Amino acid sequence: MARAPNAPQQADRIAAPAISREDVPVRVYNFSAGPAQMPLPVLERAASELTDWAGSGMSVMEVSHRGKDFVACAADAEAALRRILAIPEGYRVLFLQGGASAQFAAIPMNLTASGETVAYLNTGQWSAKAIAEARAQEVEVVVAADEADSAYTTTPAPGSYEVPAEARYLHYTPNETIGGVEFPEIPQSHAPLVADFSSSILSRPLDVSRFGLIYAGAQKNMGPSGLAVVIVREDLLGRARPSTPSVLDYARMAKADSMLNTPPTFAVYLLGLITHWIEESGGLEAMGQRNQAKAALLYQAIDGSDFYANPVQERSRSWMNVPFTLADPSLDSEFLAGAQAAGLTNLKGHRSVGGMRASIYNAMPIEGVRALVDYMTEFERTKA
Amino acid sequence: MARAPNAPQQADRIAAPAISREDVPVRVYNFSAGPAQMPLPVLERAASELTDWAGSGMSVMEVSHRGKDFVACAADAEAALRRILAIPEGYRVLFLQGGASAQFAAIPMNLTASGETVAYLNTGQWSAKAIAEARAQEVEVVVAADEADSAYTTTPAPGSYEVPAEARYLHYTPNETIGGVEFPEIPQSHAPLVADFSSSILSRPLDVSRFGLIYAGAQKNMGPSGLAVVIVREDLLGRARPSTPSVLDYARMAKADSMLNTPPTFAVYLLGLITHWIEESGGLEAMGQRNQAKAALLYQAIDGSDFYANPVQERSRSWMNVPFTLADPSLDSEFLAGAQAAGLTNLKGHRSVGGMRASIYNAMPIEGVRALVDYMTEFERTKA
Repeated sequence: MARAPNAPQQADRIAAPAISREDVPVRVYNFSAGPAQMPLPVLERAASELTDWAGSGMSVMEVSHRGKDFVACAADAEAALRRILAIPEGYRVLFLQGGASAQFAAIPMNLTASGETVAYLNTGQWSAKAIAEARAQEVEVVVAADEADSAYTTTPAPGSYEVPAEARYLHYTPNETIGGVEFPEIPQSHAPLVADFSSSILSRPLDVSRFGLIYAGAQKNMGPSGLAVVIVREDLLGRARPSTPSVLDYARMAKADSMLNTPPTFAVYLLGLITHWIEESGGLEAMGQRNQAKAALLYQAIDGSDFYANPVQERSRSWMNVPFTLADPSLDSEFLAGAQAAGLTNLKGHRSVGGMRASIYNAMPIEGVRALVDYMTEFERTKA
Repeated sequence: MARAPNAPQQADRIAAPAISREDVPVRVYNFSAGPAQMPLPVLERAASELTDWAGSGMSVMEVSHRGKDFVACAADAEAALRRILAIPEGYRVLFLQGGASAQFAAIPMNLTASGETVAYLNTGQWSAKAIAEARAQEVEVVVAADEADSAYTTTPAPGSYEVPAEARYLHYTPNETIGGVEFPEIPQSHAPLVADFSSSILSRPLDVSRFGLIYAGAQKNMGPSGLAVVIVREDLLGRARPSTPSVLDYARMAKADSMLNTPPTFAVYLLGLITHWIEESGGLEAMGQRNQAKAALLYQAIDGSDFYANPVQERSRSWMNVPFTLADPSLDSEFLAGAQAAGLTNLKGHRSVGGMRASIYNAMPIEGVRALVDYMTEFERTKA
């Protein structure tokens, strides 16, 4: 295919230093909770074809979402996700906008009529947000278990709570990003199980068949912000309230293969690259092993020290988000500054919690956790 | 700041051809209606820093939206938008997800109570979608003008319609992307004016003070898909229905500087680059002059030929989207194939309309329009 010459644009450049792509990119270990570190090969691939995707002479960001190239790209990303998660038949995969936060409202809009009952487990701030948005949708929210007594450092023991018979679904947050609290098991539920997997999806194998609906903002393990993946059992579709915005209506979006309106095409494209990276890295079994090892390394360092502490009940400690405190909080700033200087960034704890938090998603290699542990050990030693 | 070594990731690469960045990117003229062609300097800048933004050792996609670097980036993009559009005091600028389509529902949710009356002008398919979503929000939609009689090739003459006194707002679609119909004037309205500017925002100067609310999906003149910009007069905030999803609640998002939840950070970053490109290209006055010249060139070629035709009333012809038909539709495929081979892509008309459509947004240089006109002239000559 012939190409038009590189016609001059009105402004030929935006002031920026020239960077040779042959340079090895200078990268830090980024412990941000989301948006979060992405696999470097994914970023490099995206950068290499940002102006010319697959020989098209256009960026993937510039092509029609309804053209055959992007349709194939989206189908490929969905197929990879299905393979990786071993999603059974009878589930739809949707690519939506608005992050998990839009889903807090979309879920009751799609799955309930006004006045019906739903059950939630409250294990932290993200559970609480989901509960608040559900209440605003005029459903009767029963909080079947509330871990407030432990200051949200625990998950409810299996069998220790009841879900009302009339509950249209049971919603829980498998991994609370802020508190670093992760369910070690999938709750039993007679009602369809609905789960906000934003900060732990694709971190280890998952039995999707246990769930009615899984949702996740992409910006931890699945790419950049701006995309929410919804995996929903087909029998739950089709009774959305008439006032549900079309772009949050699961049945309408499913019918349109997530393209009722323009999807976030660049995020879908990156999801495709990330899912391929996961497959090339050994899939969720291998991811799970690596993540378990990373978490163990860090918790051992914390537990083996009198200087650092993590408050979470051991069985509920998150593999993805590790909050910890220093014995002397007045040293927090110095700890963070030294970490930054050592190339260990975004360790500051959530603004509502203080202290430190290391998020160690899929893209964080074990070398990064070792570097953090080495830094923590050395910092403690200098303060002894 | 010291950097961590470039630690090996689990999978070191994703199979891709090596591309040297010193190569001139091979680019086509892309007439896609959205997602659409973006300015090449913007894409090149983004590519050059995709793995290391502003010396941070992280991509802009990997940083926390609440960190000082991204907060500054978003503030800069907003400030540039305010300068370019000369947005007066008393307006908020919001960066939301869900595109314009989410706004079709968000607008009645935010601006009306159930049962109130609103007025819409119907000039094409996007007007119709907005009307349908408003009706689903249980407002009384009065279609004050409906251009069905002209098969949606006209805009209603000023003064030819009435807006009910009780209308909470008058909504119109300044540029219908599919029909190529653009209002040559801003409607008069006693009710606050609400406008879907998705396909014409930033194409020429605009008197924002005439409007209560302007909204636009970014993926024509403002970047990639996944971002909707909402410019809303402050007096219209604060009476959103309680069941409005938080991420679509203007007052709540305004209070949080569009960061109630995680915004689409890469799209906001690109918006910043694009607004700077617009300023460096002479702002909206210069954009308007260039766009007017581009459109004139193409319409003259169509009108000066018996082979091509455009159905739109002359005063309402869009500067952004130019649909046209061939005298013999059986030649459509050949026309498209030849155009593709000549580096003129995405000329196929909307699936609901057929024929051809050239979208000629800001990033399409006049050279691209000349190349198209040359191709059209030659194609006609060979068919004579």
